[in-house]
Amino acid sequence: MLKTRLDRIQRDIEELAKFTCVEGIGCTRFTYTKEFAGARDYIVAEMKAAGLDVREDAVGIIIGRMEGKNPNAPVIMTGSHFDTVKTGGRFDGPAGVTAALETARTLHDEGFVPEVPIEFVALPEEEGARFGSGLFGSRAICGQLKPGEIENNRDWDGISVAEAMREYGLDPAKAAEAQRKPGEIGKFIELHIEQGPLLEKNKIDIGIVDAIVGLRVLNVHVHGRSDHAGNTPMHMRADTMLAAAKAITAGTEKAIALGEGTVMTCGRLETVPGAFNIVAKETFFQIDCRSKTLANVDKVLEVVRASLDKSCEEYAGLSYDMEEMVFASELPMQPEIKDVLRQSADEAGITYTDMLSGAGHDAMIMGSICGAAMVFVPSKDGRSHVPEEWTDYEDLQKGVEVVYRTVKQLASEK
Amino acid sequence: MLKTRLDRIQRDIEELAKFTCVEGIGCTRFTYTKEFAGARDYIVAEMKAAGLDVREDAVGIIIGRMEGKNPNAPVIMTGSHFDTVKTGGRFDGPAGVTAALETARTLHDEGFVPEVPIEFVALPEEEGARFGSGLFGSRAICGQLKPGEIENNRDWDGISVAEAMREYGLDPAKAAEAQRKPGEIGKFIELHIEQGPLLEKNKIDIGIVDAIVGLRVLNVHVHGRSDHAGNTPMHMRADTMLAAAKAITAGTEKAIALGEGTVMTCGRLETVPGAFNIVAKETFFQIDCRSKTLANVDKVLEVVRASLDKSCEEYAGLSYDMEEMVFASELPMQPEIKDVLRQSADEAGITYTDMLSGAGHDAMIMGSICGAAMVFVPSKDGRSHVPEEWTDYEDLQKGVEVVYRTVKQLASEK
Repeated sequence: MLKTRLDRIQRDIEELAKFTCVEGIGCTRFTYTKEFAGARDYIVAEMKAAGLDVREDAVGIIIGRMEGKNPNAPVIMTGSHFDTVKTGGRFDGPAGVTAALETARTLHDEGFVPEVPIEFVALPEEEGARFGSGLFGSRAICGQLKPGEIENNRDWDGISVAEAMREYGLDPAKAAEAQRKPGEIGKFIELHIEQGPLLEKNKIDIGIVDAIVGLRVLNVHVHGRSDHAGNTPMHMRADTMLAAAKAITAGTEKAIALGEGTVMTCGRLETVPGAFNIVAKETFFQIDCRSKTLANVDKVLEVVRASLDKSCEEYAGLSYDMEEMVFASELPMQPEIKDVLRQSADEAGITYTDMLSGAGHDAMIMGSICGAAMVFVPSKDGRSHVPEEWTDYEDLQKGVEVVYRTVKQLASEK
Repeated sequence: MLKTRLDRIQRDIEELAKFTCVEGIGCTRFTYTKEFAGARDYIVAEMKAAGLDVREDAVGIIIGRMEGKNPNAPVIMTGSHFDTVKTGGRFDGPAGVTAALETARTLHDEGFVPEVPIEFVALPEEEGARFGSGLFGSRAICGQLKPGEIENNRDWDGISVAEAMREYGLDPAKAAEAQRKPGEIGKFIELHIEQGPLLEKNKIDIGIVDAIVGLRVLNVHVHGRSDHAGNTPMHMRADTMLAAAKAITAGTEKAIALGEGTVMTCGRLETVPGAFNIVAKETFFQIDCRSKTLANVDKVLEVVRASLDKSCEEYAGLSYDMEEMVFASELPMQPEIKDVLRQSADEAGITYTDMLSGAGHDAMIMGSICGAAMVFVPSKDGRSHVPEEWTDYEDLQKGVEVVYRTVKQLASEK
């Protein structure tokens, strides 16, 4: 028997979806726009109706606080972001916001008084779709804003984060005040859509995230020589495309062999000069490799390097260089929270599986200052960041129920 | 002891190189331009000085005829083209033209009277660099001009072949008259630069072409699905780039294993959407495969197809299609001419090797109506179609000497 209410969850999602600057094609809600302000007003109203003490912090994070018997104890925090990508869906972000709202409402309806403070939050600019400043809200909380990013990062119209903040009613000079004191936050729990196909495919209600993957993204440039595709024997070439194809094949096979959620992707490859009858003298490609552990990632990239090295030995005139574009260590979720999540799911008759998060989330940043955990709900066909992004409300409710029960349990502990 | 003269060969190449529309960056001489007309005038003058009966045919082929004692016997023809690619070199084409001119001059100096007629030719638009009408001259001789191509094929300024012919002083309505009668031409011998690295690398004077390769060029489109590079396990993807990488790797390995001059090239590959963190939903690539026999080419492409088929079986949602863009059967060179070429080289103390021509040439077209043969001279670093294209004049002379001796021998046979 679920304690949370499907109708309120569905209403949150549907109401928030109305705050979009592009009508009719999914949802587009960029940070600090008037749509964003509309969504804020809805969230603030819901929080107030749930009896929370609501404030907007220095960077526009909406914080609804339910005071604990021990107001100085580390806070239990739950929520997600409420910005979206361009013509994205209605669930990426808002699913976690409604989890926070419905948890607050259900606890309020019950007259629950927590031992420790609970904060329900809605965060700005996680996607970075407006300013390229991804994970902005959680970074502000954790003191990880980069020097100058508020002044320098600009949207397509040249408007800086600072200018947009002013327009929105915030004082950018005070942005650093969003940082929370060490020890102030104890745990962070984020519900998010899976953005992958596993839950739907395996008919499992929710995912309990075991870790957010470790990640490296590399730019690889292979340098060789343009030769005539007809008159140059294979052994006398310096064929950059062939070297790339072998490295991609070898690396991917290693990723598959390693398991543990290891994935390798080459989503972009370009050849120069790019003619059918000329051996490519330059090939540029990108490798995105993620795994439960960075050690696995490094094993895959070792195989990629070994394959390229072998090609360079075999074919005179070949060389390559690699540049790391993105790096993130794996972040294991806090075992104590995972235990309560499992127990909560069991009590509510909700099926679950341990899984990895292949993408970064605000919880990844929050994990640098407190225990973090994530709950995934199914994504239809694994799709996200598109108008077709979908999670059945009944499925979403199951995730929300587990968050509600977990927050209640954790906040009941003295 | 060589009978041909180095100074005259060098002068031909240097004089022809002056007829370029781009000064200082290699040689650019497009068909029917004023540079082209300048080169024509030089060639015509040289032919006349060599006592030839010179005419320009209906498409601008320069034909210098040395009448035979039997004027009705099938003609021995030698020559090459005198157009170039954009900012190409001075040897691709003119090397074979100077072989014809120097052969004519040497025979003239000797007072040689052939048993059968010899025609020394210089051909237009082999490269297709102006109108995209490659092998135009030889196709005109062989009756292989396509309906409408003279009216429809246009250069970058929109000028059609027909308009350019008129401007040049030719009547496009008469183009078909360039076709020679069946049996009129007996043998065609073309000297050309190798455009590959083998002769230089192996320190061999000339190549006697065994065959012009069989060739297929395919456009391959692999269709799949865009998925998140982090959240989609390897086995649930339809990764078009991975399928392409495997197919390219497998096909190339087969080409290497087959030998017989088999080469496979993927010079162009593109991914859609082309982002590092999105599995490519479309990958387009081109495969150029050539070999001594088309049977080898087909074996390679079978492996490419089998690899793609395997990927499609393994990964739901993957499919592909292939379209053949270029096709040519292999063309074996005439054994009788090859024998005389070898014998001529032996007599002159010139080293040679049998080799394949990996590229098409006018000799490939001519081979459809008569016996054809080719002599290759070394290309420095295997390079061509670039300003750096180079053949030492001493090396070129050795090729010319063999052509001269071969033409003389063949024209002496009753």
